[in-house]
Amino acid sequence: MPEMIGYLAATLTTASFLPQAILTIRTKDTESLSLSMYSLFTLGVFLWLIYGFYISDKALIFANAITLVLAASILSFKIYNVLFKKG
Amino acid sequence: MPEMIGYLAATLTTASFLPQAILTIRTKDTESLSLSMYSLFTLGVFLWLIYGFYISDKALIFANAITLVLAASILSFKIYNVLFKKG
Repeated sequence: MPEMIGYLAATLTTASFLPQAILTIRTKDTESLSLSMYSLFTLGVFLWLIYGFYISDKALIFANAITLVLAASILSFKIYNVLFKKG
Repeated sequence: MPEMIGYLAATLTTASFLPQAILTIRTKDTESLSLSMYSLFTLGVFLWLIYGFYISDKALIFANAITLVLAASILSFKIYNVLFKKG
């Protein structure tokens, strides 16, 4: 039962992040996204993943592994655009 | 050491959400926010909090209690605006 709640929580918070990730990866437009917000968020998700491994929690690992890939993709586009394009 | 990583992760992901929460609570403008995204996210954060209590994980409880208050505030403004204002 607790494990099911963890996976449902993981699915919901990851799913809520998907539309932004899909939009950004498709359009590569990051002008209205905040570099500092995505830097904090990506680092935070990375640390949640490490923490998930430390306490051997599968729901935490599952949620944050997927979210990390999405957040890091968005952050990479943002950094690329800041460095080489308009922002 | 694992506990410190959990709290650092909690602080970072919560902090990354703060600017949006402050902006929305201050302006009450929710037109560019997605109702379905915030519904999924708020429910997900609520379930992470329940899960945190189930597995007695203080970092999970701490992070998701704060984020739940912020996300639920934004969602309440959004629902109010959808029902009584323009969107």
